[in-house]
Amino acid sequence: MRSTTETRRLTAKGRATRDRIVTAAATLMHDRGVAGTSTEDILEAAQVTSPSQLYHYFGDKKSLVQAVIEYQTEHVLAFQRPLLRLDSIQALEAWRDAIITSQQARGCRGGCPIGSLAAELSDADPQARAQLAAGYTQWEDAIRDGLRSMQERGELEQDADPGQLALALLTALQGGLLMTQTRRDTVALETVLTAMIDRIRCHAVG
Amino acid sequence: MRSTTETRRLTAKGRATRDRIVTAAATLMHDRGVAGTSTEDILEAAQVTSPSQLYHYFGDKKSLVQAVIEYQTEHVLAFQRPLLRLDSIQALEAWRDAIITSQQARGCRGGCPIGSLAAELSDADPQARAQLAAGYTQWEDAIRDGLRSMQERGELEQDADPGQLALALLTALQGGLLMTQTRRDTVALETVLTAMIDRIRCHAVG
Repeated sequence: MRSTTETRRLTAKGRATRDRIVTAAATLMHDRGVAGTSTEDILEAAQVTSPSQLYHYFGDKKSLVQAVIEYQTEHVLAFQRPLLRLDSIQALEAWRDAIITSQQARGCRGGCPIGSLAAELSDADPQARAQLAAGYTQWEDAIRDGLRSMQERGELEQDADPGQLALALLTALQGGLLMTQTRRDTVALETVLTAMIDRIRCHAVG
Repeated sequence: MRSTTETRRLTAKGRATRDRIVTAAATLMHDRGVAGTSTEDILEAAQVTSPSQLYHYFGDKKSLVQAVIEYQTEHVLAFQRPLLRLDSIQALEAWRDAIITSQQARGCRGGCPIGSLAAELSDADPQARAQLAAGYTQWEDAIRDGLRSMQERGELEQDADPGQLALALLTALQGGLLMTQTRRDTVALETVLTAMIDRIRCHAVG
C-alpha cells in the first residue's frame, strides 16, 4: 500500500499531522459525505494552516479518500473483531445485541462507516470501490471463520456453508445499518439479524 | 403533499418542464449523489435555460430533493409492484431472480435509488429522512400483504409474522443492493435473498 509505505518514511511529527488530517477527513466525510466535504473544512478541523501540507501528505483528494477508507475499515474491524468469534448461536446473539446497543448509543445515526462510503463512491471511483469491497471481504472472512469453527466443533451441520452464511449475515447487517439510519430505530436491524441467526439455527446441531 | 398540489395548478407546458427538471435531477443525483449535483448541471440536463424556472417550480434545492425522492419512490415501487404478489415460495424466488437479472442488466451499478438517497441524506436532512422511511414502509407493506395472503391460504404457518418477515426481506434486499454496487457482482444479493427465502420456507406448510 502506497500510503502505508509513505507513513513509514515520515517523522513522528509528520505522522501525527498526517493522522490528524485522516481522522478529521474521516469524521467530516462520514457526517457530510465525501462530496460534501471541502479541503478547507478538513484543514480547519485538522488544525492544519497550510493547504500545501494536505498535498504534501496525500497528493490529491482521491488518495486522501483512500486513506479514509483504510482508516474506517480498520476502525470498523477493530470494533467488530472482539465480537467476531461467532462460533455459537449465543455468540451470534451477543454480536447482534452489541451492534444494536452501539447503534442506539449513537442515536441510530451514521450507518456503517464502510457502507456509507460504499454507497457514495462505488459507482464513481473504481479504486475506492475495490478497496471497500476488500474491506467487506476481510469482515466476511472473520465472520466465516467463527461459523467454520462452530462447524468443526460439530455444532453446525456438515452441509451448511459457513462462507455463504457469513456473506448473507454481513449483507443483512449492511441493510440493517442503512435502515437504522433511515428509520432512526433499530427494529429493522434487529429483525433482519434475528432472521439470519434463525436461519443459521436451522443448521445448528443439538 | 405540497408538490402534488402545485403540480395540479400548473399548465400542461409548466408540468412538462417541471417533470423534465425532476427526471434530470433524479438521474444526476443517482449518478453523482445529491451533494455532487449542481443546479447548473440540472438546468443543462433538463434543457432549461433560465435558473429562475428552477426556483419557480421548487423554491430551493431541498424541495427539489423532495420531488426527486417522490419520483424515485414511485419508480421503484412501479418496478416492484408487479413482482410483489409474494404469496408463495415460487413468487419469492421469481422476485429474487427478477431483481438479480435487473441488477446484472445495469452492470451491478447504481444500487437502490431509495437506498442511495437514504445513505446520503438520512443524517443531514430530517424531512428527506422521514420521506425515505415512508417510502420503505410502503414497500414493506406491499411485501407483507403477499406473505399475509400466503398465510391466509394456509401455506405459511399461523405463528409466522408476515410483518417481521417482510421487514427482514426488505432490509436484506437493501444490504444486497449495496453489496452488488460495491462488489460489482450479484453474489451477495442472491445469497442474502436466498437465505431469507429459506428462512420463510422454514415456516411454509406442505
